[in-house]
Amino acid sequence: MDAYWRAANYLSVGQIYLLDNPLLKEELVLSHIKPRLLGHWGTTPGLNFIYVHLNRVIKAYDLNVMFICGPGHGGPAMLANCWLEGTYSEYYPSVSQDKDGIKALFKQFSFPGGVPSHVAPETPGSIHEGGELGYALSHAYGAVFDNPDLIACCVVGDGEAETGPMATAWHSNKFLNPTRDGVVLPILHLNGYKIANPTILGRMHEEELLQLFEGYGYRPYVVEGSDPAIVHTRMASVLDQCLDEIKAIQTAARSGDSDTVKRPTWPMIILRTPKGWTGPASVDGKLTENFWRSHQVPLANMANNPEHVSQLERWLKSYRPDELFDEQGKPIASILALAPQGRQRMSDSPHSNGGLLLRDLRLPDYKLYAVDVPAPGSVEAEATRVMGRFLRDVMKNNMDQSNFRVFGPDETSSNRWDDLFDVTARTWMEKILPEDTFLAQDGRVMEILSEHTCQGWLEGYLLTGRHGFFSCYEAFIHIVDSMFNQHAKWLKTCNRIPWRRPIASLNYLLTSHVWRQDHNGFSHQDPGFIDHVVNKKAEVIRVFLPPDANTLLAVTDHVLRSRNYVNVIVAGKQPAPQWLNMDAAMKHCEAGIGVWEWASNDYGDEPDVVMACAGDVPTLETLAAVDILRSKVPELKIRVINVVNLMRLQPISEHPNGLSDRDFDDLFTKTKPIVFAYHGYPWLIHRLAYRRSNHANLHVRGYKEEGTTSTPFDMVVMNDTDRYHLAADVIDRVPRLRNHSVYLKQYIRDKLIDHKQYIYKYGEDMPEIRNWQWPYPSPAVEHTDTHSDE
Amino acid sequence: MDAYWRAANYLSVGQIYLLDNPLLKEELVLSHIKPRLLGHWGTTPGLNFIYVHLNRVIKAYDLNVMFICGPGHGGPAMLANCWLEGTYSEYYPSVSQDKDGIKALFKQFSFPGGVPSHVAPETPGSIHEGGELGYALSHAYGAVFDNPDLIACCVVGDGEAETGPMATAWHSNKFLNPTRDGVVLPILHLNGYKIANPTILGRMHEEELLQLFEGYGYRPYVVEGSDPAIVHTRMASVLDQCLDEIKAIQTAARSGDSDTVKRPTWPMIILRTPKGWTGPASVDGKLTENFWRSHQVPLANMANNPEHVSQLERWLKSYRPDELFDEQGKPIASILALAPQGRQRMSDSPHSNGGLLLRDLRLPDYKLYAVDVPAPGSVEAEATRVMGRFLRDVMKNNMDQSNFRVFGPDETSSNRWDDLFDVTARTWMEKILPEDTFLAQDGRVMEILSEHTCQGWLEGYLLTGRHGFFSCYEAFIHIVDSMFNQHAKWLKTCNRIPWRRPIASLNYLLTSHVWRQDHNGFSHQDPGFIDHVVNKKAEVIRVFLPPDANTLLAVTDHVLRSRNYVNVIVAGKQPAPQWLNMDAAMKHCEAGIGVWEWASNDYGDEPDVVMACAGDVPTLETLAAVDILRSKVPELKIRVINVVNLMRLQPISEHPNGLSDRDFDDLFTKTKPIVFAYHGYPWLIHRLAYRRSNHANLHVRGYKEEGTTSTPFDMVVMNDTDRYHLAADVIDRVPRLRNHSVYLKQYIRDKLIDHKQYIYKYGEDMPEIRNWQWPYPSPAVEHTDTHSDE
Repeated sequence: MDAYWRAANYLSVGQIYLLDNPLLKEELVLSHIKPRLLGHWGTTPGLNFIYVHLNRVIKAYDLNVMFICGPGHGGPAMLANCWLEGTYSEYYPSVSQDKDGIKALFKQFSFPGGVPSHVAPETPGSIHEGGELGYALSHAYGAVFDNPDLIACCVVGDGEAETGPMATAWHSNKFLNPTRDGVVLPILHLNGYKIANPTILGRMHEEELLQLFEGYGYRPYVVEGSDPAIVHTRMASVLDQCLDEIKAIQTAARSGDSDTVKRPTWPMIILRTPKGWTGPASVDGKLTENFWRSHQVPLANMANNPEHVSQLERWLKSYRPDELFDEQGKPIASILALAPQGRQRMSDSPHSNGGLLLRDLRLPDYKLYAVDVPAPGSVEAEATRVMGRFLRDVMKNNMDQSNFRVFGPDETSSNRWDDLFDVTARTWMEKILPEDTFLAQDGRVMEILSEHTCQGWLEGYLLTGRHGFFSCYEAFIHIVDSMFNQHAKWLKTCNRIPWRRPIASLNYLLTSHVWRQDHNGFSHQDPGFIDHVVNKKAEVIRVFLPPDANTLLAVTDHVLRSRNYVNVIVAGKQPAPQWLNMDAAMKHCEAGIGVWEWASNDYGDEPDVVMACAGDVPTLETLAAVDILRSKVPELKIRVINVVNLMRLQPISEHPNGLSDRDFDDLFTKTKPIVFAYHGYPWLIHRLAYRRSNHANLHVRGYKEEGTTSTPFDMVVMNDTDRYHLAADVIDRVPRLRNHSVYLKQYIRDKLIDHKQYIYKYGEDMPEIRNWQWPYPSPAVEHTDTHSDE
Repeated sequence: MDAYWRAANYLSVGQIYLLDNPLLKEELVLSHIKPRLLGHWGTTPGLNFIYVHLNRVIKAYDLNVMFICGPGHGGPAMLANCWLEGTYSEYYPSVSQDKDGIKALFKQFSFPGGVPSHVAPETPGSIHEGGELGYALSHAYGAVFDNPDLIACCVVGDGEAETGPMATAWHSNKFLNPTRDGVVLPILHLNGYKIANPTILGRMHEEELLQLFEGYGYRPYVVEGSDPAIVHTRMASVLDQCLDEIKAIQTAARSGDSDTVKRPTWPMIILRTPKGWTGPASVDGKLTENFWRSHQVPLANMANNPEHVSQLERWLKSYRPDELFDEQGKPIASILALAPQGRQRMSDSPHSNGGLLLRDLRLPDYKLYAVDVPAPGSVEAEATRVMGRFLRDVMKNNMDQSNFRVFGPDETSSNRWDDLFDVTARTWMEKILPEDTFLAQDGRVMEILSEHTCQGWLEGYLLTGRHGFFSCYEAFIHIVDSMFNQHAKWLKTCNRIPWRRPIASLNYLLTSHVWRQDHNGFSHQDPGFIDHVVNKKAEVIRVFLPPDANTLLAVTDHVLRSRNYVNVIVAGKQPAPQWLNMDAAMKHCEAGIGVWEWASNDYGDEPDVVMACAGDVPTLETLAAVDILRSKVPELKIRVINVVNLMRLQPISEHPNGLSDRDFDDLFTKTKPIVFAYHGYPWLIHRLAYRRSNHANLHVRGYKEEGTTSTPFDMVVMNDTDRYHLAADVIDRVPRLRNHSVYLKQYIRDKLIDHKQYIYKYGEDMPEIRNWQWPYPSPAVEHTDTHSDE
């Protein structure tokens, strides 16, 4: 095993440094060394150490293990082990298990046209990049939920351990059911230093350190030292001990007569080894091994330091490569024999290429959950509650294949998905009291007040080939902006890797949205996640703004069938008028954008004005504005357009869902004013549509950072997105209304004054606002263009 | 004290429910009750309980205490106590300490035209909204750094305790120096439930709970119960104990002969009381007190439940208001006497209105730190290292007023601010080893690998009237997107509150930016924080992209003098050509945007093309493209514009720094093609400039989510933002180049092929790229328009 470790270390150092002379058959000279030295040595020998020890137990106990590498910048370690196991050459035949292959392995690392310096989608066996720190443990827990035979070994660096998301992810053990889930074996790898600093956990008193992890609910075992022989022995016995405990816990839980078990105290390992272990003890007289100076490239500036070249050669030779590789550069048989075989190799775990294991969800027919809408606006419904009924049956239908969970920060009920509790409950492994509602050890609703943990669990669950949904208050989804970034980047890269099989999309329901945070106030009002999302590669992101329950149902069905996207759905949870019957909703969602003929009065002619809307509240206000205008100026020709799929607004050259310019012009005209009421920040619509021919006439209303605790209608008034302001925008822009404008504007001003006076007095919206109904009875049918080309 | 508590509880319930009949002199009827019931009762009685106990010790020990209310949605509690202390009536005379005042206090809560339902900037005594959970403790620590006499009592709800940022903020005790800093007294308030769930910390075994906080390095004291008399007694004795320990620690540290002290084990309190304590035990037969059902409004739907109205009346009367308020509605004398006086009232702490205490920084003359630039491009420098020298002396000059710190996630050295370590060190209260570099107990560089904690500390430090800087890798600043949101919203609201005095701006240096993450790869590449920031209110946000060291100096000086902004500076840390001498840099930064005449050859005429740039790497590539074009087509007239202050691109109607349309047209012309090389996502430039007359001719290049580990120049090539693509963009757009275009485009294609071949072979950029220099010797003077109107 020590030879295996030396081989992995040798291959790691070689990746960081060598362009040529991979087996050191010649004297090492400057031209063998890369001109730019990029990589992270510090954490690498520890990762290699853990890897070989896991390989031993995988074989000894016939285990199913995956490796989650928190310190993902120790990429050389993962690549070295993947190559030693033969997996790398199977995935990338040009990097063969011989001398040429070693040379290719070395050169490609952190090299143009080669592979990234971090663990990345390109790395077989990985589901976790580790570039941005904090998410290793929540990914690991996500991976083992519903995978009873899987052990995720999760290495957490002591730098990463300082992050917030990691600090709370340790509590994931409160949600792990030993009966139906696998287990995470966390290895806190304390090497003591970050880039240029000691680490908190590395310097804490040992007593506090143990208390901390006992307090988190683990049984920590310390493995410590710098003498490889001693640490090998200790690590092997501690690993055996941990696996015995895991097995005992699982056996007891799974053979028990009782349905419920006590939350186990799972083992974990605290591995304390020197940073840059086995590397140069000092460089230019400065302490390097066991210090932060070994974080990246211990020996640098080779061209000006011949001594560094020879020091590098001594370092590489200290691993005795001649004993590790044969003449052809193949690892010797006794090393090869140590690795597990086939899919048992961690670098070839099918769980790390989740698409291999993905099974379609058994989806009920969403149309059966439709709200009956005899005429537009004739009934009210809570859109997300209707969605919750559909999800209840998605959950029920897939209970026996155990591949669907929903996640959220204590908001499942608040967001009106209560019907889920007819068929499942919230996962809860702590004590359950008689008065508790909908808690169970085998619940499939995952709630923790940490958006980071919800997101991390869901990502881990999806990346290992399952399905899920995340519901969140719209404003607070920004908490995971950066996690979304990393996942979107992962998906984009996977699209370019043939062996990565598609996985289920990451689906967000954002509700309790900006317009209905009238009770929580300004801090809860932020629709900017959409802006954040659309900065990412068009091929992986989708944004939907269904205006009512039936469109939300159609969108929900669509996103649950989709693959390799991040789907953002924004929808309200409050009672609201329903516009489309199921048939119309289906067609509208398929088109993604369309004229609502039942609300328009242009009857196929060129209209005087286009009134467009995206989002449930802006749709309501637009229709109410249409009502005002049609009643006051019946001769005005209005075309009403509703947008469900926001990406339809972009040119098709920019987004695969985009409309062609011709179709866009057909809808929005080339010359007529467009008054657009949008759910979020108005400039996003301009950013999507600035290339369109009629852009100069596009006027957008939306949220402009005005709000406080007030009434729902006052929220739109504060942001000039209410029916009166929208009507005024039309009056200002349609030349033929000039004769009416003084009278109309005065009417609108009076209405707004009435509004303020009423709410200041009574604290609620005027009855004429609350009770407004679309006044034109007509069948809930709508014109849809055939612009569906997704 | 129990009477005081009852008074606060009465006033809290009144705020949630009552429009009229504030002292219950009449029988309670429906018309006395608000039509919309908004507010959070669950946490409120506990907050009131803590508040009155703190008042006791403030008076008993003559303390300087501020209250950080993590469960900020318990707003009624803070408002009730503020009113009882008389502070509220001083700040808001219409809410007087009498019957009319009580009525006004009740009505305004969560009411249109009134005050938000959460603790907010409108609430005297607050620096923390608590709407988004996770930041209470880092705010509290930020507040007490360099405030040796201050005690920040920080209430952490058990919901908030599940968040990641909170879970790591407990480690802030490793950075608190008992000699020069004040202290945080955390009170973990376990009431057991969130919105609809039990909480993790509320249900953990007591033993694990204590281990967890001992592991974090605290000495936890448990106060538990539901019988007020018993809990009062226990709370009083525990508070006395905690304050004794705090005093003992501080006295020992401050009178010690040694410069260094052992990190103390500070006390904390775990307060376990029922959620909704003293509220309805059950409603409609369902358990309410001590359960999640008391989270918000326990009794609702009053109009349809006459029984609820009488239950509310019984609840309110259980506090015996007749014993608490006199006939005029003034609290009785014995209650008033319990509150501290003047600035000692927590609701009137000057630290909570930091602008009152703010002292200007003593800034050295930034011009003295200038890089000597005899001609544009003639020298190289690392911009952030030059900035670091300036900051070193800012630090030095303000050492004795102890009001400047810098914050960052272990990146101060990496970001080239090393010179700071000439005058200070990193704060470190754990053990310091002989080999450690630049660690000290009294260091003023705050490094923890948690962007959340850095941001929280800095916000707390600024909100209490001090100054600071946060340096961060550009991609990972997204980790605090949501915290930025909350701070920007806080600042915007403060601008509308006359008694809130301006505070120092929150300053970010974003470096290790997207274009120079060639070694870390795709996961480290994200310039989208700027997009996120510009969604917030224009009056509080500023974005600067200085192209070189001297402009960075001028911007740094500017942001350190500014107030009530969030300033985002993006600048590189790598050696790069310098363009402007100090005089030119000053003028350029003052204008924020300007023609670089030394790089242009339009000589006052209408140019054929405008080449604009923002950001250091895009500026370099633009100038290199100008070089290519001028050498190949000398007759082409090019105008080069550089943008430092990004907000100059917006219309002045949208942002106070915006250019007028006339000035914009003067710079960019009305009809000529504009090729714009931008640091970030290109569509942001369109979003800022879509209203400009020449927008149709604006062509923007920037980062479009392409990147991996490669060379610096390859990064710009992958995103079509390199000199060759920019030159090709010009060729495609200038009609008079049509004759040259075949030859020029072939030249460019060949160059790009050479580039790829070279880097794939050698792993570094071609010498002609690495060694390119601006070839036109000319004085580093530039034309600046007089568009400076900030």
